[in-house]
Amino acid sequence: MIREDVKRDRKATVLVAGSWGTALALVLASNGYFVTLWTRNAEQAAEINEKHQNSRYLPGSELPANIVATTNMQDALDGAELALFVAPSAGMRLVAKAASPYLAAETLVVHATKGFEAETMKRMSIVLAEELGREPSSIVVLTGPSHAEEVIKKQPTTVVVASESLEAAEKAQDALINGDFRVYTNVDVIGAEVAGAIKNIIALGAGLSDGLGFGDNAKAALLTRGLAEIGRLGTAMGANPMTFAGLAGVGDLVATGTSKHSRNWRAGYMLGDGTPLETVLEKIGMVVEGVRTTRTAYQLSKQFGVEMPITRQLYEVLFEGKEPKAAVEHLMGRLKTHEMEPLG
Amino acid sequence: MIREDVKRDRKATVLVAGSWGTALALVLASNGYFVTLWTRNAEQAAEINEKHQNSRYLPGSELPANIVATTNMQDALDGAELALFVAPSAGMRLVAKAASPYLAAETLVVHATKGFEAETMKRMSIVLAEELGREPSSIVVLTGPSHAEEVIKKQPTTVVVASESLEAAEKAQDALINGDFRVYTNVDVIGAEVAGAIKNIIALGAGLSDGLGFGDNAKAALLTRGLAEIGRLGTAMGANPMTFAGLAGVGDLVATGTSKHSRNWRAGYMLGDGTPLETVLEKIGMVVEGVRTTRTAYQLSKQFGVEMPITRQLYEVLFEGKEPKAAVEHLMGRLKTHEMEPLG
Repeated sequence: MIREDVKRDRKATVLVAGSWGTALALVLASNGYFVTLWTRNAEQAAEINEKHQNSRYLPGSELPANIVATTNMQDALDGAELALFVAPSAGMRLVAKAASPYLAAETLVVHATKGFEAETMKRMSIVLAEELGREPSSIVVLTGPSHAEEVIKKQPTTVVVASESLEAAEKAQDALINGDFRVYTNVDVIGAEVAGAIKNIIALGAGLSDGLGFGDNAKAALLTRGLAEIGRLGTAMGANPMTFAGLAGVGDLVATGTSKHSRNWRAGYMLGDGTPLETVLEKIGMVVEGVRTTRTAYQLSKQFGVEMPITRQLYEVLFEGKEPKAAVEHLMGRLKTHEMEPLG
Repeated sequence: MIREDVKRDRKATVLVAGSWGTALALVLASNGYFVTLWTRNAEQAAEINEKHQNSRYLPGSELPANIVATTNMQDALDGAELALFVAPSAGMRLVAKAASPYLAAETLVVHATKGFEAETMKRMSIVLAEELGREPSSIVVLTGPSHAEEVIKKQPTTVVVASESLEAAEKAQDALINGDFRVYTNVDVIGAEVAGAIKNIIALGAGLSDGLGFGDNAKAALLTRGLAEIGRLGTAMGANPMTFAGLAGVGDLVATGTSKHSRNWRAGYMLGDGTPLETVLEKIGMVVEGVRTTRTAYQLSKQFGVEMPITRQLYEVLFEGKEPKAAVEHLMGRLKTHEMEPLG
């Protein structure tokens, strides 16, 4: 099962074993890494080790033998060249806290989670830096238009790894890049993280518009305004405006806002279709980052004094009982009459 | 049939009666204009006048009584407050030449055609200005994410009217805006015209990628690189880079690149699916602007010394017999390793 070129001395650890974590573990495994998936769930770990399956997140696919799982954090991180954190944003601090005692100074830290910590409104790289006792500049974020389902099938995918340290970003690039999974570097961590988080809100909005029966013209307008909204918050927080024109910005927004693979889009669609929020969250089952990000982004927009009309309307739909139709109609009507409104 | 508020003294003329021209005639008619559609096709004119139908481009829909058609240019333009040119790019000069003797100096000239004149590589506003003996600054271009099918159904749509003269753009805005059709002004004619033309090429490429069975991740990457390519050519030609982040740029690109309404997307899809080019053009029946624009854009990229990899690959597929799969794979592989590559 193990490829001839697997180097058992190169170990990578992925925390935790959700769908995106599993997809990235497959990328690392096919690049020759010996991959350890850390999970709290002993049953899931046993299934991965004994049946080479992760049936909840990757039904019907077999995992290669160079992916193993463990619930033991020390075993998971021991000797890892790379630690890839893919916990949901709400769980990132706890996972990092658990990892911290066992993480060697030379292990490269990368994360691929799109969201903020709700309580503190902090970006994921800041949460990691705090818990791991590292400089934020040493942390790498992986983002971009990348549905896990397609990465698993080895369909061509492009992502961005961003770090204040170009050297760190290049190390992550070397570890992850292959013919199907193209990895580009960027030094704008703030832009990459803000774009990845906020696009989940815009994707919810795009789903809402589709669920209400509006067409592609309306959705294109919404995505355009969403990009402007992401750019306004990001630049206010210190990002490079150009990041939003790239894969981390417009690329991820388009992939999430127009694809039925997106859980955020689906959540929005069901809401637009008249399904109550509780039912939506139950039915989609997995974490809908867009819902919790809406609350944080709404607060950030106030803190930074930035206009975020789509976020505001979704906040009212999700948390104040506003009718989805009224929200989308408000958005279509409120656009400025002069179209030039700089990203920055 | 005619609304109470139709002012027969406000006449608008639309040339010619294709699907987009008919959709815009419906917008003007619902805004109270008495609309004359000019067409060379006497049968089509008779059908519109006698049956209130335009069965080729608008099957199954009835036109209101305040839309009439004529083949007589003098009758068409006599007393028009607004002349809206929607000829295919290849026919624009001839239609303008025919209109010129009958166009009053006070008639506002707007066009909604996305393409270049192939022989001269000129933008449509320049072709119109030359043939009508007007200053280019007096011409308005209408563009943005606007599938005719959805405008006809009064689904919410946002467009941009751009003119060097903000006053002219605002006149066009006043004539066209209503609750379902939101019109925003912009003074960057070059950006609006270049974005509208080149996005047809990128939509062809997106269709090609879909037709080859690549996924949403690949398409998002292609659209992102397409936006950068549009921006590079546009700014080299004198556009404001911000236009490409707006409705005329990313908005139209998303609508055309992700929608099955788009003829360009469909043409690309069929090519990707293995259908020969001749068959594609026959089957799609209507004008595929993206095919002719590819040739022009390829020449413009050389003239302005601008890298346009997607345009180049499509040029090779359309005119040099390159395999679509090889072209898309080349595009996925050739992306730079550092993602920051400014639009400008």
